Amino acid sequence: MYSDKLEMLFKKSKIEIGDQIKVNNKGKALEGILMPRPELGDNNIVVIKLSNGYNIGIKIEEKSTIEKLAEHTKEEFSFPKIKNIENLKNSNKISLLYTGGTIGSKVDYVTGGVYMLTKPEELLHEVPELKNIANIEVKNLMSIASEDISYLEWQKIADSTADALNAGSTGVVITHGTDTMHYTSAALSFMLKDISGPVVLTGAQRSSDRGSSDAFMNLICSANVAANSNIKQVGICMHATHSDDYCNFIKGTKARKMHTSSRDAFKSINSMVLAKAYQNGKVEVLEKNKDVEKTKKKTIANTKFEPKIALVVSYPDSDPGILQYYNKKGFKGVIIEGTGLGHTPVSTTHKEYNWLSSIKDATSSGMVIGITSQCINGRVNGNVYRNGRLMQEMGAIYCEDMLPEVAYVKLGFLLGNHNKKDTEKLLPVNIAGEITEKTDMNSDE
Amino acid sequence: MYSDKLEMLFKKSKIEIGDQIKVNNKGKALEGILMPRPELGDNNIVVIKLSNGYNIGIKIEEKSTIEKLAEHTKEEFSFPKIKNIENLKNSNKISLLYTGGTIGSKVDYVTGGVYMLTKPEELLHEVPELKNIANIEVKNLMSIASEDISYLEWQKIADSTADALNAGSTGVVITHGTDTMHYTSAALSFMLKDISGPVVLTGAQRSSDRGSSDAFMNLICSANVAANSNIKQVGICMHATHSDDYCNFIKGTKARKMHTSSRDAFKSINSMVLAKAYQNGKVEVLEKNKDVEKTKKKTIANTKFEPKIALVVSYPDSDPGILQYYNKKGFKGVIIEGTGLGHTPVSTTHKEYNWLSSIKDATSSGMVIGITSQCINGRVNGNVYRNGRLMQEMGAIYCEDMLPEVAYVKLGFLLGNHNKKDTEKLLPVNIAGEITEKTDMNSDE
Repeated sequence: MYSDKLEMLFKKSKIEIGDQIKVNNKGKALEGILMPRPELGDNNIVVIKLSNGYNIGIKIEEKSTIEKLAEHTKEEFSFPKIKNIENLKNSNKISLLYTGGTIGSKVDYVTGGVYMLTKPEELLHEVPELKNIANIEVKNLMSIASEDISYLEWQKIADSTADALNAGSTGVVITHGTDTMHYTSAALSFMLKDISGPVVLTGAQRSSDRGSSDAFMNLICSANVAANSNIKQVGICMHATHSDDYCNFIKGTKARKMHTSSRDAFKSINSMVLAKAYQNGKVEVLEKNKDVEKTKKKTIANTKFEPKIALVVSYPDSDPGILQYYNKKGFKGVIIEGTGLGHTPVSTTHKEYNWLSSIKDATSSGMVIGITSQCINGRVNGNVYRNGRLMQEMGAIYCEDMLPEVAYVKLGFLLGNHNKKDTEKLLPVNIAGEITEKTDMNSDE
Repeated sequence: MYSDKLEMLFKKSKIEIGDQIKVNNKGKALEGILMPRPELGDNNIVVIKLSNGYNIGIKIEEKSTIEKLAEHTKEEFSFPKIKNIENLKNSNKISLLYTGGTIGSKVDYVTGGVYMLTKPEELLHEVPELKNIANIEVKNLMSIASEDISYLEWQKIADSTADALNAGSTGVVITHGTDTMHYTSAALSFMLKDISGPVVLTGAQRSSDRGSSDAFMNLICSANVAANSNIKQVGICMHATHSDDYCNFIKGTKARKMHTSSRDAFKSINSMVLAKAYQNGKVEVLEKNKDVEKTKKKTIANTKFEPKIALVVSYPDSDPGILQYYNKKGFKGVIIEGTGLGHTPVSTTHKEYNWLSSIKDATSSGMVIGITSQCINGRVNGNVYRNGRLMQEMGAIYCEDMLPEVAYVKLGFLLGNHNKKDTEKLLPVNIAGEITEKTDMNSDE
């Protein structure tokens, strides 16, 4: 229930949950559908669903007014219907592994919260066009928000993906929350070997009951990549632009979520996209890589993983003792997001204990320390400045143009399969597309 | 000295330090100037300076060959001369505060390392065009790499900037290393109040002895902003594009280094740039903001700062105990770089201690916990999903569209001046351009 004060305001204007209303607050007017009060939080905050599909909370002040614009219609939301899809006739079988996330969620009009579909087959009911693309076998792996996904889920998804491919699926589509989709795509890239078909992670930035939902097109394009392309890679397939032009299929080890809410949030970093995928079935492979033409093999899942690892940032006055904190907890390795070309504060005079000693102590006692950059774009280089050379001297491993998140996942994968020495050797070497080979050392690219 | 093996190779081809050489290694040829061996590291690695100005180390293998291409010329490097600069006649006085970094560095041909200019006046000798822009007073504040800059340096720079403006300078240019320039620009934005003129941070991605150095143009454009614009803001003025078109003057609280090595590394995030600055003196103010026309006042430096704060990342299997580690060390607050709209793993079943309890424990014992997003672009929102609402319930403060690094600096500034309650109140409120007001809630922008 809303606060008594609000309930009175609603009653006065005969406003009910679900009605279109206008809230005038602090000189601003906002229109939307009145939502039920969320289970938590200030009950003096009015929650409305804007036309762009977003819910927003408005703290009601003394001078605020609320008008009713239109009655609540009881219609259910559903996916918008697509018109220009070609008559695809395809007898390929693909698997759709469901893990949860916004793409499989709807707003619960009782609690006002977003809830997960318990029957992922509903996705097929809502997007009947999927049936024109391929025979789709849906498997319900789990139903969780992606920020709650751990390495245990990565292992489960990797095993199920290998099983699906080895059971004859041409490709696999994995629906997943967007928050950590790029961590999962990196994990699958390392865990899956000799992949026999496309492994396509997809999701939605806006739930399927919104008019502006990206769920529909992302699913269609992902199914197209899985059924109609021959890209034997793990990747993320999501909106390429703000509008519904096409999706990018981005290498699983080069993708990063670069916007909190935009539909084209996923970007390919330090690398070209693998392909553009269109709703009409066309898949334009941009990077001719040898994996595309590889002979079909049995997909192997090696899911060994060492979870006692961490990702830390270095910044002005950052505490180098953090490495010893993790060391005492039995952690096996840490990836540092350094500044610039991969630096930590090493000569700060007012600190009695600095990053250099800390790195040395950590590596001496058996930890692997990898260096990446918080700049995200570009390549680290420990040879340009003195601080970088000193950090290397203390045992830090520079991770080339690997994304910090990918280096974190790779570190866990390597430590799950190798000892410290081999892990340090393999960390800066490309094994799953995570490191782009240096070309002409042109530092502008 | 290089290894005996390498010295023999050099002797055979009469190669000396400084000669132009060609190294054939693993089927690739690289040309450049042979550099002296760095003080540290493998002495079997040949270091050459490429034509793009970068030093690169090449591990010499059995099959590698080294050819001499040209003799070393003993000429000194110097800034390239600019031709099309207009005859500016300006009697304005500006201050140039020198702090170190690549812009004030040269390669030391004895050690092979990059060293800092001990006399920053050399910058004026090397860029005589600066004298046409304004009367420039150079002050040597410090000479350190920016990754080593701490809050103590921020305080010193803030005080000196206020002094310079109050002593009659039209504007101030601060040369600074690029690694943490955006942290310093944020710190100055919060510490300086009623700024009477432009405060322009600048630096270089490539040292001034390189043909492709950006130092020269960045200095010219920054001096132009300081002398010829009326933008009473702290900002960063660096290359806007790969080529020498113009510089962007980016708001100090909205700038972020987004590439490890590219000349246009600094981007304006979630905000328009303040101005475009050209070498010919033109300064195109893009965002007409009220600060531009503000009456000139006495600049006040409030440098109180609480350094016992931290910036941590949340990611799959991230350790929530990190908050208690900092709590035990007496830290007053932590900024979390959450996933997506600002989430931490809260429902991970295999962890006995989760982020929710950790946030609650931290806030209950007096810490301030701020939430930002590792997506960098976009705005956090703790009201869309259940996890975000629960995190708020535990006392976490959502920091709108503030960059994580800026939120970190702001937290230290607020805690240096306010108690917990007021800090929590001010953290999500704009005080120095760090938070962009919501417009139409369109989540695509």
